[in-house]
Amino acid sequence: MRKEYLYTPGPVAVPPEVLLKLAEPMYHHRSKRFQTVFSEVNEKLKQVFRTKNDIITFTASGTGAMEAAVVNFLSPGDKVITINGGKFGERWVGLAKAYGLAQHEVKITWGTAPDPEEIGKLLAADSSIKAVYTQLVETSTGTLYDVQALGAVVAKTPAIFVVDAISGMGADDLPVDAWQVDVCVVGSQKALMIPPGLSFMSVSEKAWAMAEKATLPKYYFDARKARKLLAKNDTPYTPAHTLIGALNVSLDMILKEGIEAVVARHARLAAAVRAGVAALNLPLYSKRPANALTAVETPGMDAEVIKKELDKDGILVAGGQDEAKGKIIRIAMMGYANEADVMIALAGLEQVLQRVGYAFTPGAGVAAAQASLLKG
Amino acid sequence: MRKEYLYTPGPVAVPPEVLLKLAEPMYHHRSKRFQTVFSEVNEKLKQVFRTKNDIITFTASGTGAMEAAVVNFLSPGDKVITINGGKFGERWVGLAKAYGLAQHEVKITWGTAPDPEEIGKLLAADSSIKAVYTQLVETSTGTLYDVQALGAVVAKTPAIFVVDAISGMGADDLPVDAWQVDVCVVGSQKALMIPPGLSFMSVSEKAWAMAEKATLPKYYFDARKARKLLAKNDTPYTPAHTLIGALNVSLDMILKEGIEAVVARHARLAAAVRAGVAALNLPLYSKRPANALTAVETPGMDAEVIKKELDKDGILVAGGQDEAKGKIIRIAMMGYANEADVMIALAGLEQVLQRVGYAFTPGAGVAAAQASLLKG
Repeated sequence: MRKEYLYTPGPVAVPPEVLLKLAEPMYHHRSKRFQTVFSEVNEKLKQVFRTKNDIITFTASGTGAMEAAVVNFLSPGDKVITINGGKFGERWVGLAKAYGLAQHEVKITWGTAPDPEEIGKLLAADSSIKAVYTQLVETSTGTLYDVQALGAVVAKTPAIFVVDAISGMGADDLPVDAWQVDVCVVGSQKALMIPPGLSFMSVSEKAWAMAEKATLPKYYFDARKARKLLAKNDTPYTPAHTLIGALNVSLDMILKEGIEAVVARHARLAAAVRAGVAALNLPLYSKRPANALTAVETPGMDAEVIKKELDKDGILVAGGQDEAKGKIIRIAMMGYANEADVMIALAGLEQVLQRVGYAFTPGAGVAAAQASLLKG
Repeated sequence: MRKEYLYTPGPVAVPPEVLLKLAEPMYHHRSKRFQTVFSEVNEKLKQVFRTKNDIITFTASGTGAMEAAVVNFLSPGDKVITINGGKFGERWVGLAKAYGLAQHEVKITWGTAPDPEEIGKLLAADSSIKAVYTQLVETSTGTLYDVQALGAVVAKTPAIFVVDAISGMGADDLPVDAWQVDVCVVGSQKALMIPPGLSFMSVSEKAWAMAEKATLPKYYFDARKARKLLAKNDTPYTPAHTLIGALNVSLDMILKEGIEAVVARHARLAAAVRAGVAALNLPLYSKRPANALTAVETPGMDAEVIKKELDKDGILVAGGQDEAKGKIIRIAMMGYANEADVMIALAGLEQVLQRVGYAFTPGAGVAAAQASLLKG
């Protein structure tokens, strides 16, 4: 009998009440009914982002909103800083290149986080820098960046601070306004607990002012056009409105628990995963691990084999990408995850470690994880 | 008791077996399971498009694929012809403007179709024209364009022929290869019978050759990047894979009936709607009506009132846009629609017409529609 557990860093498990919402009969998106749903979702998203800013919803995966965070605020040749510590930092670099920006790429070792002081020095040295692009969580390495400190540094300059929180929002702390994030990009298939297909972008007044002058070409991702219609709870083009309806349900779940409590739950579960793998003598890949996911090294073993063996038992985790391929597995306790999921993942990992001949004390991983959970 | 019938020109009703597919537990998109689904969908889409060309799937609404049909094939300043006979023609015009193309806009009266000979003359007069952008069905007017004749004209030139078949594919005839369509854009929420969130673009070898030289900036909608991954049944960014899974089910339904039979069904239902409204002395708005939807004038009555009254009875149709607002209702028998739906829509329309004091022979509409259906 195969029973599946989804612990990949997105898409993550979707609660059954959200899935059932997706099975409801179709309705028209140009209707009072949709306007009501969209208005509710927009209000609830602001509570999750902890922002007063407008949030634009795009029918696109997270990369679409990342593109929107470039084309809406800049003009060809504009200077930007891109922070590149993994696959998703690379995406900012690729976007800046595709749109002909003058890019100062801050390349950091995979698994490390950027130094806010260094970014501050770069900004101080060149007041013509228009934007700083970074991640909250670099999903390829499981690393949490210090967005609060980075925000404080960028806020003092004319530049806007753009954060890809596709993986992080709801799992790691990110009060958008308090941390001075001008543009925050989020995806639907992570801690927001719905399927992929939507992405979101909050925009501060500082960023809207830049948008007025930005001349990079855009159409589908034009945020100013979307903002005008947002005021009427409408969208420029046909939205994936059934996903928005599903989001209305998952946001209710998140807000009922409370956004701070949701983040605290993620912190508790991630700490337990880290305690469990430490007891199995498996090192962490990241020097600054996130709640959203845990990147675990598999010394002396091919991580791809571990991943495949876990898959055989119905436990689905991600492997490493590029330079981390074969070296790590990535375990996400994200969104619809609780204490039981930690035990399932670690118990499964022990099963596989024994099968591949890795030496460890049976039960050490689950016991350490359980001890961590019982500490509260 | 409210019982709803969705006859808007997209989103259209989604079959229950497709809706239930959307309620299945989440799974990871970087997996054999998704590759198998995507490979099946890609093969089936080609049968529906009747093309040998690659079809790129975008997680975006139809406008996203329209943008892809611009940015992938052209460079700034390139000359194009845009045919503008309604809201969706206007979208090509807006895209060409946003991306700095040298545009010859062929503006035609709403409700009419472009003259292929005129387009031929324009192309003959300027061999530097790179592309012709048009619709199969202009959804704002319910008008079918002569794509076959336009295709024959464009094929003789170096220009590529780009057709927005978002509303038309599966409802009106469009054998992509036989009619020499280089780039064909389709949406998910119309005759393909799934919710909004996906769009598709088929690309001919003539168009791929242009893509090699095209310098317009692009990232999310980069078709060449998508094509490379398509060969491995993969996508550049997280796709809305649960919608792709739903599409696999709806495509099975379409192919089981047969694409020619599906189009013939749409033709039969649209003919019955036209017969019904003719018997009620309601003129058609279009000089060349499509199968996908029927735009019906409401002389002496505010069409928005008719639409709202129909809505009260659970019958959902669209009104007119811009210059057609208040003048027409648009009734779509698209996708998951059969003979019963025609009777429901016309019976409902008669109920409303009587309520607003319009003079007609009770039952004339349904009788004429039924007579049309019984002719086969």
